[in-house]
Amino acid sequence: MSDYSVYELLNRKRRGAPLEPREIEFFIDGYTRGTIPDYQMSALLMAIAINGMTGTEMATLTQAMLRSGEQWHLRDSYDFIADKHSTGGVGDKVSLVLSPWVAACGVKIGMLSGRGLGHTGGTLDKLEAIPGFNARLSREEFERCVNDAFCVISTSTEGIAPADKKIYALRDVTGTVESLPLITASIMSKKLAMGASALILDVKTGSGAFMRKYQDSKALAQSLIAAAEGSGTKVEALITDMDRPLGVAAGNANEIIETIEVLKGHGPADVEEVTRAQGERILVMSGRYDEASAREALDEALRSGRALEQARKWIAAQGGNPEVVDNYALLAQPSTTIDVKAPRSGVISAIDTYQAGMFTVDLGAGRKKADDEIDYAAGVMFDRNTGDEVRAGDVIARIQLGKKERDAEELRAKFLSFVEIGEAPAGRPMVHEHLR
Amino acid sequence: MSDYSVYELLNRKRRGAPLEPREIEFFIDGYTRGTIPDYQMSALLMAIAINGMTGTEMATLTQAMLRSGEQWHLRDSYDFIADKHSTGGVGDKVSLVLSPWVAACGVKIGMLSGRGLGHTGGTLDKLEAIPGFNARLSREEFERCVNDAFCVISTSTEGIAPADKKIYALRDVTGTVESLPLITASIMSKKLAMGASALILDVKTGSGAFMRKYQDSKALAQSLIAAAEGSGTKVEALITDMDRPLGVAAGNANEIIETIEVLKGHGPADVEEVTRAQGERILVMSGRYDEASAREALDEALRSGRALEQARKWIAAQGGNPEVVDNYALLAQPSTTIDVKAPRSGVISAIDTYQAGMFTVDLGAGRKKADDEIDYAAGVMFDRNTGDEVRAGDVIARIQLGKKERDAEELRAKFLSFVEIGEAPAGRPMVHEHLR
Repeated sequence: MSDYSVYELLNRKRRGAPLEPREIEFFIDGYTRGTIPDYQMSALLMAIAINGMTGTEMATLTQAMLRSGEQWHLRDSYDFIADKHSTGGVGDKVSLVLSPWVAACGVKIGMLSGRGLGHTGGTLDKLEAIPGFNARLSREEFERCVNDAFCVISTSTEGIAPADKKIYALRDVTGTVESLPLITASIMSKKLAMGASALILDVKTGSGAFMRKYQDSKALAQSLIAAAEGSGTKVEALITDMDRPLGVAAGNANEIIETIEVLKGHGPADVEEVTRAQGERILVMSGRYDEASAREALDEALRSGRALEQARKWIAAQGGNPEVVDNYALLAQPSTTIDVKAPRSGVISAIDTYQAGMFTVDLGAGRKKADDEIDYAAGVMFDRNTGDEVRAGDVIARIQLGKKERDAEELRAKFLSFVEIGEAPAGRPMVHEHLR
Repeated sequence: MSDYSVYELLNRKRRGAPLEPREIEFFIDGYTRGTIPDYQMSALLMAIAINGMTGTEMATLTQAMLRSGEQWHLRDSYDFIADKHSTGGVGDKVSLVLSPWVAACGVKIGMLSGRGLGHTGGTLDKLEAIPGFNARLSREEFERCVNDAFCVISTSTEGIAPADKKIYALRDVTGTVESLPLITASIMSKKLAMGASALILDVKTGSGAFMRKYQDSKALAQSLIAAAEGSGTKVEALITDMDRPLGVAAGNANEIIETIEVLKGHGPADVEEVTRAQGERILVMSGRYDEASAREALDEALRSGRALEQARKWIAAQGGNPEVVDNYALLAQPSTTIDVKAPRSGVISAIDTYQAGMFTVDLGAGRKKADDEIDYAAGVMFDRNTGDEVRAGDVIARIQLGKKERDAEELRAKFLSFVEIGEAPAGRPMVHEHLR
């Protein structure tokens, strides 16, 4: 195919006509190898973001991106291995709780995960708050962890879907991040390149989700499931609530503590509920449990302390200090804690969770730019959440500062600007819908 | 404005919301200076090409592009000076005929014109077929020609609308050429940077036009007129026919001959009619003629030989050999002429004029790539045109070869593939509509 074809292809997509599979493959291959320049790819991305893609185009795009690099075919190496992906949110430590919990039920789980960018936290950043924890594993180390601890979470290696890395960086600076087919191909190319036996998708919805509106979250879930068709990986999705921070802690060290608290059986109910729902689906997808026995197994793993024990094993397998489970002082400690009090009595009717996420990032818990350093001790404790009754003067949140000094009054004012105290809001379930 | 704003601005345009004037100015200014990279500009161009622009956005874009370089304000240097622009076609030598003809009526006319690219010929390429003709004038030389010969046609200098040059090159490789707001801003930024007193637009319609459909041609004419509002340049448009080659000759040297033939009073009627219509509007816009006296003046200039005399003066003023007017042998001569005969009797019901243009380019008369060299002798003589009755065996065209040898049978077959002989087509006027 010649240069002229690139031009024709861009013209066609501009007009809204679909591209042929071989054309999509040609474009992705050329861009990955550097024969198609950024300015042609960004024009294509914008045309896709505006005009959309058919199901066939999207599946081809996903396949082309996944074939740009290594394919691990993990499902061929194990009887069963699960994968999990969350579209991201504030206080979302579900992967951390889920992995040892499922592993404690005898089901293997492995994830190639990402770092935080934007308002959402990153699973890897949280894990790296644990002293010694190594989240940059080779494929060999990844598989050794699966064998040793039945669970592993690592950063995606260079070899996995290089097309996605290059395209994602370009989308980030060309206003083409919000696009259903591009999001789908980005997520699924990495997931299918790993090639687990089954994948559970946690698609968030609400003010702190990537997709705020329910119908958009559902469309994304359906699109992700469709893109995996015929791939050999079983995919199911749960649409879960992100209209308020999940749990109490948002940050890094504080989310590790909360994770361990859930595994000890006394964490926040919402975190436990969302994790339990996903764990149940994974156990059922493994074929070794039905719904009832899956629920029982999860209960038992928590009650018996085996889930917590599995967390110790897992942390050790990835080079971290497992004593952290019993001694939170091993984690970075806040230099100062600033109480935020309710200015009046009432019910917390809403927390703009996107704003809450950006607030947490701004404290140093996340990144504004890709090369920003994480301040593990920084974060927020949402002691009261949406739907809770408060009296004037009650502490509703604690802002934890790390290395950076900040003006307490300014932070309090900023915090209260995204929290609404008024009438009781309409109730929202934590798990909205199950799709497969 | 920060980088973040570029991202936000691209996001907004992707969603179809209009940009603020200062945002458009920021983007064009940044791109011209090189602080905004190609890949962000191409994303914006694609978003504009798909989502369109409001009238205000388009006017701002035009202004921002024209302000990226020199502004000549020619209307301040002369009592009256006209400009003319054609959207391009096959056999379109109207500018060449028009300039000395209008000048012979005492009205100054100056154009900054372009070279051929794609299926249409370039006015400058045709002029350069005249030995010695200099189409690369400085602003001083340009004005000297206006003073000496009342007419001038030159290539746009580096200083005029540099943003347009850079953006046009990018559109050409990103599938964003066909876009009403981008075409409008590209044309009008250059025209308004020259700043004539009045501008006549020749917007072509039909199979050899940039806009094939009548409604698209009309929309372009209206858009071009709207973009000039408040600029100080009076703008009118004629929508003229390009559903068949204009005149007989398509090429370079052969179009110079046809130009002179028209000025001698025995050129093809269609070329004369289209040129006359535009000349009339220019004379009226000058304020020195009404419609009747304009028609009379044009008649008289042709009949008396003054238009031809003006052509001699003009050619000399731009360094060309004026003897060409009396001695066509001074022009490059075809090495071979291949007759194309009608395969059967009937009426020429259609000539796909885009294909006819590409055929002519392929002979060497135009460029496929920007750095291709023009073969001045190469071209086509369309001895019979759409609507003409032919008998089997009649010569309907002569293919003129220049430097390149070609297979005669192959060329004949190719030629006949875009000419239809059948029923008489519905008649089309040469001048469809006058807009102002």
